[in-house]
Amino acid sequence: MKLDPDDFRVRPDGKVDLSKLPTKVDAFYDDKQDYEKQLAKQVEQLADLQRMHYASDRWALLLVFQAMDAAGKDGAIRHVMSGVNPQGCQVFSFKHPSAEELEHDFLWRTTRCLPERGRIGIFNRSYYEEVLVVRVHPEILRSQAIPDELVDEETIWDERYRSIRHLEKHLHRNGTRIVKFFLHLSKGEQKKRFLARIDEPEKNWKFSDADVTERAHWDDYMRAYEDCLSATSTKHAPWYVVPADDKENARLIVAETVLETLRSLGLAWPETSDARRAELKRVREKLEKE
Amino acid sequence: MKLDPDDFRVRPDGKVDLSKLPTKVDAFYDDKQDYEKQLAKQVEQLADLQRMHYASDRWALLLVFQAMDAAGKDGAIRHVMSGVNPQGCQVFSFKHPSAEELEHDFLWRTTRCLPERGRIGIFNRSYYEEVLVVRVHPEILRSQAIPDELVDEETIWDERYRSIRHLEKHLHRNGTRIVKFFLHLSKGEQKKRFLARIDEPEKNWKFSDADVTERAHWDDYMRAYEDCLSATSTKHAPWYVVPADDKENARLIVAETVLETLRSLGLAWPETSDARRAELKRVREKLEKE
Repeated sequence: MKLDPDDFRVRPDGKVDLSKLPTKVDAFYDDKQDYEKQLAKQVEQLADLQRMHYASDRWALLLVFQAMDAAGKDGAIRHVMSGVNPQGCQVFSFKHPSAEELEHDFLWRTTRCLPERGRIGIFNRSYYEEVLVVRVHPEILRSQAIPDELVDEETIWDERYRSIRHLEKHLHRNGTRIVKFFLHLSKGEQKKRFLARIDEPEKNWKFSDADVTERAHWDDYMRAYEDCLSATSTKHAPWYVVPADDKENARLIVAETVLETLRSLGLAWPETSDARRAELKRVREKLEKE
Repeated sequence: MKLDPDDFRVRPDGKVDLSKLPTKVDAFYDDKQDYEKQLAKQVEQLADLQRMHYASDRWALLLVFQAMDAAGKDGAIRHVMSGVNPQGCQVFSFKHPSAEELEHDFLWRTTRCLPERGRIGIFNRSYYEEVLVVRVHPEILRSQAIPDELVDEETIWDERYRSIRHLEKHLHRNGTRIVKFFLHLSKGEQKKRFLARIDEPEKNWKFSDADVTERAHWDDYMRAYEDCLSATSTKHAPWYVVPADDKENARLIVAETVLETLRSLGLAWPETSDARRAELKRVREKLEKE
């Protein structure tokens, strides 16, 4: 089967039912060696496109990664982006907001980290946490010090979706292309990975007891994700639901989606105008005569 | 000849005479293929060490790159650091300070960008510009809106060196390791590279006429660098003068120096205490019973 990122895109008018979307699909690679060969090729193309992206300095690309714990966000970022020049790639991981960040609206802290033109910005978790973990744990909402009369749990999620859609549309209008990945992991596969993190001493540091506590809210999270993906997958800022039970497959899908997005920008090396060429000729003569 | 970074280090008590330091040394590689093999090996080791650095989350590493135009800073960063997980690597390029930045002391804007623990931070140009380009063009100093009585051109450079040394010592005391590279290019090689940027259309975008103007101040720059390197190469924040006429050789030297610094940190995967292991066992049981 040919890898087509569009197969994983959430349609703007779609209503997402995660139980009907696969956490595993047929592998796009024959064996480990073939996977490595394919990924290496993608990484090389990505590095080339990103150099042109950086040189042309016009668009910005924002990649958002969201998922349940152990779905492979960090690994996907590392394997897909490790060949790219770090000068043109910025990764931000968003954990608990700081006291200063909580003094601002919920889009403030991530907005400060948006990618510059010519860069690829990666959000490992993002402002979407504000309609995911906060929705599953509404007590967080009440601790955010928002004026009481602005917090109505019946309407606030739709309001937040609207704020997010408007921000993303604004960014799109100003040259930032946004691609969002939900790494779709099954509950059984998460359990396996947690057990591996406990059993393999060199993986212990990756494991937090809170991960297991959050797992108890699995169904609530799925509902929050479904609602969020349905409300915020737009033409200009689509969500991709990436089957994540097979890490290698997920990385190939992510890489192909990023590649396709970069290709769609019609990047080219900056052109030199005739006037500029004449000027360069004069500079050249000056330099030669030194 | 074996590559030993120490051969390029500026001794803390040294008085630098750049005319006596080579811009070219015997190659550390046999041919292009051997260079690529060596660099690939270094990059792989670097990626591995950086993963451990990130996981242990205790030290920060700051790499400062300074050089004349076209000395190969960008290329060195790209070739040495592409391979490292961008999640643990942050590159900042400092160009003209913004109006907001000029409202602050000269160390403010770069301080905001210092690497977090577990990260490698790269400054492509840095606060050192404040004793280099500003020294060569003292009119910049007068435009910085510092109170007049604090600007004495006889003493200000020594004062700035002192501020820099104190900042770097403070960072060292708090867990940031600092390594500084001056890519030492000859004036003749710069001319060649400028001509190439003019002659090869795909390199035109890298060339700015201002580069040629700055070249006219070559000797002043060399004096500013000599003074600066002599005053700020300390035991805890050494400068390395890297011969840069041979780009490939320079990259091998930079990579080896970074590797050696990371190795000196005695990095290890985070250990799990007995108490924590017992706790993990309980979590495991809970997870198994689900």
